[in-house]
Amino acid sequence: MKEACGVFGIYAPGVDVARLTFFALYALQHRGQESAGICTSERGVAHLHKGLGLVSQVFNEDNLHLLRGDLAIGHTRYSTTGSVKLLNAQPYLIETALGLLAIAHNGNLTNTPTLRRDLLQRGVGLTSSSDSEVITQMLAGAAGDTWDARIADFMRRAQGAYSLTILTRDAVYAVRDPWGFRPLCLGKLNDSGWVLASESCAFGPIGADFVRELEPGEIVRLDANGVTSWQTRDQNSDTAEHAALCIFEYVYFARPDSILEGHSVHNVRRKMGRQLAREHPAEADIVIGVPDSATAHAIGYAYESGIPFGEALIKNRYIGRTFIQPDQRMRDLGVAIKYNPLADLKGERVVLVDDSIVRGTTSGPIVALLRQAGAKEVHMRVASPPIRYPCFMGVDMARQEQLIAANMSVDEIAAHIGVDSLGYLSIEGLRSVVPFDGTRHCQACFTGDYPVGVDESFGKGMFE
Amino acid sequence: MKEACGVFGIYAPGVDVARLTFFALYALQHRGQESAGICTSERGVAHLHKGLGLVSQVFNEDNLHLLRGDLAIGHTRYSTTGSVKLLNAQPYLIETALGLLAIAHNGNLTNTPTLRRDLLQRGVGLTSSSDSEVITQMLAGAAGDTWDARIADFMRRAQGAYSLTILTRDAVYAVRDPWGFRPLCLGKLNDSGWVLASESCAFGPIGADFVRELEPGEIVRLDANGVTSWQTRDQNSDTAEHAALCIFEYVYFARPDSILEGHSVHNVRRKMGRQLAREHPAEADIVIGVPDSATAHAIGYAYESGIPFGEALIKNRYIGRTFIQPDQRMRDLGVAIKYNPLADLKGERVVLVDDSIVRGTTSGPIVALLRQAGAKEVHMRVASPPIRYPCFMGVDMARQEQLIAANMSVDEIAAHIGVDSLGYLSIEGLRSVVPFDGTRHCQACFTGDYPVGVDESFGKGMFE
Amino acid sequence: MKEACGVFGIYAPGVDVARLTFFALYALQHRGQESAGICTSERGVAHLHKGLGLVSQVFNEDNLHLLRGDLAIGHTRYSTTGSVKLLNAQPYLIETALGLLAIAHNGNLTNTPTLRRDLLQRGVGLTSSSDSEVITQMLAGAAGDTWDARIADFMRRAQGAYSLTILTRDAVYAVRDPWGFRPLCLGKLNDSGWVLASESCAFGPIGADFVRELEPGEIVRLDANGVTSWQTRDQNSDTAEHAALCIFEYVYFARPDSILEGHSVHNVRRKMGRQLAREHPAEADIVIGVPDSATAHAIGYAYESGIPFGEALIKNRYIGRTFIQPDQRMRDLGVAIKYNPLADLKGERVVLVDDSIVRGTTSGPIVALLRQAGAKEVHMRVASPPIRYPCFMGVDMARQEQLIAANMSVDEIAAHIGVDSLGYLSIEGLRSVVPFDGTRHCQACFTGDYPVGVDESFGKGMFE
Amino acid sequence: MKEACGVFGIYAPGVDVARLTFFALYALQHRGQESAGICTSERGVAHLHKGLGLVSQVFNEDNLHLLRGDLAIGHTRYSTTGSVKLLNAQPYLIETALGLLAIAHNGNLTNTPTLRRDLLQRGVGLTSSSDSEVITQMLAGAAGDTWDARIADFMRRAQGAYSLTILTRDAVYAVRDPWGFRPLCLGKLNDSGWVLASESCAFGPIGADFVRELEPGEIVRLDANGVTSWQTRDQNSDTAEHAALCIFEYVYFARPDSILEGHSVHNVRRKMGRQLAREHPAEADIVIGVPDSATAHAIGYAYESGIPFGEALIKNRYIGRTFIQPDQRMRDLGVAIKYNPLADLKGERVVLVDDSIVRGTTSGPIVALLRQAGAKEVHMRVASPPIRYPCFMGVDMARQEQLIAANMSVDEIAAHIGVDSLGYLSIEGLRSVVPFDGTRHCQACFTGDYPVGVDESFGKGMFE
Repeated sequence: MKEACGVFGIYAPGVDVARLTFFALYALQHRGQESAGICTSERGVAHLHKGLGLVSQVFNEDNLHLLRGDLAIGHTRYSTTGSVKLLNAQPYLIETALGLLAIAHNGNLTNTPTLRRDLLQRGVGLTSSSDSEVITQMLAGAAGDTWDARIADFMRRAQGAYSLTILTRDAVYAVRDPWGFRPLCLGKLNDSGWVLASESCAFGPIGADFVRELEPGEIVRLDANGVTSWQTRDQNSDTAEHAALCIFEYVYFARPDSILEGHSVHNVRRKMGRQLAREHPAEADIVIGVPDSATAHAIGYAYESGIPFGEALIKNRYIGRTFIQPDQRMRDLGVAIKYNPLADLKGERVVLVDDSIVRGTTSGPIVALLRQAGAKEVHMRVASPPIRYPCFMGVDMARQEQLIAANMSVDEIAAHIGVDSLGYLSIEGLRSVVPFDGTRHCQACFTGDYPVGVDESFGKGMFE
Repeated sequence: MKEACGVFGIYAPGVDVARLTFFALYALQHRGQESAGICTSERGVAHLHKGLGLVSQVFNEDNLHLLRGDLAIGHTRYSTTGSVKLLNAQPYLIETALGLLAIAHNGNLTNTPTLRRDLLQRGVGLTSSSDSEVITQMLAGAAGDTWDARIADFMRRAQGAYSLTILTRDAVYAVRDPWGFRPLCLGKLNDSGWVLASESCAFGPIGADFVRELEPGEIVRLDANGVTSWQTRDQNSDTAEHAALCIFEYVYFARPDSILEGHSVHNVRRKMGRQLAREHPAEADIVIGVPDSATAHAIGYAYESGIPFGEALIKNRYIGRTFIQPDQRMRDLGVAIKYNPLADLKGERVVLVDDSIVRGTTSGPIVALLRQAGAKEVHMRVASPPIRYPCFMGVDMARQEQLIAANMSVDEIAAHIGVDSLGYLSIEGLRSVVPFDGTRHCQACFTGDYPVGVDESFGKGMFE
Repeated sequence: MKEACGVFGIYAPGVDVARLTFFALYALQHRGQESAGICTSERGVAHLHKGLGLVSQVFNEDNLHLLRGDLAIGHTRYSTTGSVKLLNAQPYLIETALGLLAIAHNGNLTNTPTLRRDLLQRGVGLTSSSDSEVITQMLAGAAGDTWDARIADFMRRAQGAYSLTILTRDAVYAVRDPWGFRPLCLGKLNDSGWVLASESCAFGPIGADFVRELEPGEIVRLDANGVTSWQTRDQNSDTAEHAALCIFEYVYFARPDSILEGHSVHNVRRKMGRQLAREHPAEADIVIGVPDSATAHAIGYAYESGIPFGEALIKNRYIGRTFIQPDQRMRDLGVAIKYNPLADLKGERVVLVDDSIVRGTTSGPIVALLRQAGAKEVHMRVASPPIRYPCFMGVDMARQEQLIAANMSVDEIAAHIGVDSLGYLSIEGLRSVVPFDGTRHCQACFTGDYPVGVDESFGKGMFE
Repeated sequence: MKEACGVFGIYAPGVDVARLTFFALYALQHRGQESAGICTSERGVAHLHKGLGLVSQVFNEDNLHLLRGDLAIGHTRYSTTGSVKLLNAQPYLIETALGLLAIAHNGNLTNTPTLRRDLLQRGVGLTSSSDSEVITQMLAGAAGDTWDARIADFMRRAQGAYSLTILTRDAVYAVRDPWGFRPLCLGKLNDSGWVLASESCAFGPIGADFVRELEPGEIVRLDANGVTSWQTRDQNSDTAEHAALCIFEYVYFARPDSILEGHSVHNVRRKMGRQLAREHPAEADIVIGVPDSATAHAIGYAYESGIPFGEALIKNRYIGRTFIQPDQRMRDLGVAIKYNPLADLKGERVVLVDDSIVRGTTSGPIVALLRQAGAKEVHMRVASPPIRYPCFMGVDMARQEQLIAANMSVDEIAAHIGVDSLGYLSIEGLRSVVPFDGTRHCQACFTGDYPVGVDESFGKGMFE
């Protein structure tokens, strides 16, 4: 399961904005590891560097030094389509009638086919299948003589998920879609300027202070006048009606040290674990989490259940992307490359906590490992409900036929992965531990209840 | 002095079109060594590969195998602006309302600022400062429901030099501007298909036969119906009135084995040398050419003058692009890295023939080398007139203040480079040896008489 | 602090030995991340591939396929000298009078200057400053007509730390120095063959079973006769007299899922934490470990003290080697790039457990982070004694003047890093929780009591 | 046919010796294009950089700046075995009992198997199959306390071809084998120092003056005492008895602007052409040379025969190493990728001059090209005798079964390549135009008369 991108923006005259953007992207690396990029604006001239790979691989002192200017945006990217190409790396930069425009996008538009057709009909050539390029050309041709007006025009026509940072000649904008599918927040850099980021965890490493999250539908502009902000939704439309923050940010995506809707993600995860223990108790000797993403949930489960928290699985810390495949012998043995069990679980009854199950392909081998290490019983507990529906709002979750819970009952899944018992957190339980009782969140992957319509695609594209 | 690009196109069902394009680009390598690219069309899907470097460096069997299809275009590029970036590599590929469109461009539009402004006003964002991207977006938004119509519409608005190959879903087009600034020709691939290339020298290595050159203003379409062609200029406009093939193609750019206006370039160069000998005879013992570009001119001079042709300068055959600079000691010695004199010219009077002098920076050191090798007299003869004006039609010739002949008299140049005598071919002499007596050629770099107007630029662009 | 290398060996006819070596090295990645290599033997022909970077970066299916054979050795490397060069990557491969010889080395010879001088006097040219090359040339010229004899000869002359795997035409050897400074163990691959590795954690991922650790001074040979092993020390010399396993393997180096001296490393670390709690109790609300290396120690401290275990520091999981430096502003703020505190420690009294303190440069910023996050008190507890002496047995620990505990008292260190209290585990406490009551371990970094002499170097080498 | 290497050496305190070595290697690029390297000595510390590719690709300002010192050697390499590996790049650098030693080698030892066996028996491990590594280890272990003595000892035992430059702490040596198979010469750098090079063409570009060639068997030492030189052959052994300079240096290898045995290579080639015309006249209209290597021979033929010299074949100037293969269609057409004929040879009778024929694979296609271009008759003239025997002295000429003249008569060859007549220069004719009437030259490739014995190899090596 892959999240689609982290974005960042900064307006800070006199500061080395590219360097700060670098360290902020570094902290947002978990939101995208396929490409990274930074674009700065220096009195009307744009400087752009982007490349494939980790932030630390894409940038060096040489290319960073060329990124001069007082304002910048940055991006880290996961492909939502699986194609890893330099062409798709962001930010995208274009010249427009209003001067330079660069954007960094987290999310996925759900009416892309319609928007794309409109652009082609208007005589605009498109160089890729990316919906982020669609956004740049929509902004280039939007109604209005100012970026303020054009962004508003864009928002009237776009549907779906978009948390954007936008760079113009003299300003940095942050734009969050009216549903607020993806997070976006504002920070302050002492007296030196302002910053914007997908998650607040990007602020600490650059010495910025968290100010607040953007409202769904809000636009923030950073420029020589400081921070200006306004709401694009109807006055009489209540935030709570539309708000649909992806609940999976709490479950898995966001870094535990980030703040969402005023709450620490780590704390919400601990609460998920506690609620899971209440819903699905177990007789066991030790509670362990699947490293590293389920540690907080497991600590919560241990706390509530009184069963001691422990470690039993070691994850190879230096795992990199490897293209070497195990041979048949290794596959037959079901050996795990990524995880290793600690030596001795002899006779122990284990509660294995995971944050979620998507395809169900890794759970089975992990359970087998625990049994090889001597575990007498393995009780799996999942800190979120069964995932039964695909995501169209910017997460590459798998097609529906690949989702194990879309195709098997809980009992069948338990048998499939070889556990003694299996319990999922209920949707009600999940709602009870997130802010606003889960009333302001997209939960479509669990419920199939999509907050926005999704255009049918018009067939395979011309881009290979 | 750098020529801006070679283009190629092929329509040949059942043939490995990418491989043939590779070998054709290989033969067009002299027209551009900074980047290379090939785009194929396979039932509506485009396959594109391009990269920086020589054709042989950009392509390998792995990436060539992915370029499937029955039709293709290719490009080799020299920058006219000096920036070497992957972003500028061609072909350019976009999706349009009529499906895929890729172009390869040789030349330079002279009303780019106006065309660019029009596009921006129309709400099209531009990703680079390239006039070739302008062409793709003009075609994407041109009037008409067919490519035939849109290309015609484009030609009504574009000014300057463009020899294009264009790839669409089902056809390959060749388009030559109404002045015919740059060459473009048609070839036949036995029964298998048709090819298009900047120069006929691309046909031999792929086993194609030269058919004819395109007329200025002509459009050729290759598709399932074979070759279709039409003229876009007014019926009552005479070709000869507009025709303005760059005369420098004869002097230097084209490969000697190519055919231009029905004549062998090698033969025209020999005639230049003969005419030069008639205009500027010399008392001498040996005639040599500056390797390798002036060999044919020198052979002509030797033939006409009766002075024996010989070799006296060796050019390092393995010269590559090196960024290592000589140190002060070497500069003080005036040593030549690229050329070495043959051992013994003791007491000889040398006629040194070059095809042209642009900045005059290499002539001096070469003359010094000959004197070090013992030459008693050096008489320089130049097989073209003094270059006094910059080119705006696709050649990166230098700014006017860098052109030595724009700033010095012939006598001053002779003194500057240290020769005993210096003679340039007259403009009349040059005209007398090219086809049509030079009446159909752009000679602006010699005369300042530009066949088309040139827009003033509106300042430094936003792209770094 | 950097460990110098992981080694591996395999003898398994009919198995894809290179692939298994790859996955074993992958599991040994924590012992060296600067280079990796595999050498196989195929009927007298050697196949070698090595390169700079992570195991996953050095190998791909193409180069792995060329590594044919029935036996192999592999290596992952940390530089002990700081120079990252392909020249230093192992295994080293040479031809000798007995045929091919390749070695992989973990450790550091302490009489290298003497050995080196002997080789040079014998007329052997050395291509690097590496003591591992010295080992290959010593073996090439050792007394004896068999590898068995030559290895024994080598061991008579070498001093210091060496856990070796050696590849010859028909056998794989494992050799452990008489002190047993570095770990080395034997595993079984079902019916298919035998494996050797620095740590037992390499066995799980390749489906091998742990058999036993090698004795200090033991040689193991794997060949067509299966496993043969013998002891090289005097019969009347007791193992316990010499044995000097690096105690830091327990503290930090080894993976927690490895077995050392029959004990789980993870369990020993938990015991360190418990003993630390007994020696240095604290009044506090939460116990946290410095991620990721001190988690087990912290769990032990929490268990013994009854203070709840928790998380308060997030380590950037995607950290890579970056060469970008923070600017002055970031340095002034003391911001931490690598760690981020969880949001709210408001008013809490924190016990911060680390496994050790070497230079003391990271502890201060971490403490500052915790205070910024609201911690009222920070009590640092270190699960090993103060490090006061450098290591000459294969660990690049820092020079003595860089070791904070060699230059400051505990109180001074506490003040320097800004904690409310600081407690180190006593040397007696450490001994009480490791096997054999710490009687068989090198503890020189704590005590200065080196088990072997160390030659003085004879000056800066000729190799840059 | 590939020559094995160019070597260079310089002793010049106060001069940027690495930069001068770079430009000298650049001029020696024709002697080896697979790898390049430079090693400098700076008060006992060696600095070495080498890599695969052209000189211009291997070096940049960054790595050149690190090559500090007052003395240096350099190398360009062609593999004589076909394996292109960084491991084989030279110079080789080792530490010895006498301090640093680096060598650059042109040639091939013919008793390598014996020398290799001696080293292995002496207990020296060898890291490659290269005879140049053998030389370094022989020098490391040679008898004598000085390099002067050790080099002499080496020369007593080595057989075959070696022109060496050797770098030690304080001196640069040049060593030429007693047969003088490969060229080696001395130059002077004004007041600044001395230089050594395979060919004198390396001197011009660095502002050095040619002094003289080394005698076969001579050693030259450059150090603080200036130039010292001595002869290693017996006093009563006459130079002329042994001298065996490779005659193919005149035919093909050496650059035309180099001096060999006091004669300009270009002049000798012209004489070959003239002698060829006398031995094999032809009735024809034009004389052309196969570009670029046979131009001088063709000019000589034209001069002697009175038939005009001309151009008819264009060689792609930008040819690089390409791995793309023509498809079957192109092969069936016999098209030439590398050469293109000038347009019109209609009805002409052509004399095609080449310097030599090795395998005979390129002559046929070139002849076909000329006929396609209209040539009525093609008379091939080869400026050297038929090559019937392989070379063991440093040239990768092909195995005997691949040499066309070893397997066919002249008439058969003429038929095979499709010419109307074929004439080779006689061995007597060749001798008559080289210095000393060919009495001091190795002509084994023509005659099979090898000046030295050649050890039989002892089978395939262990190095892949």
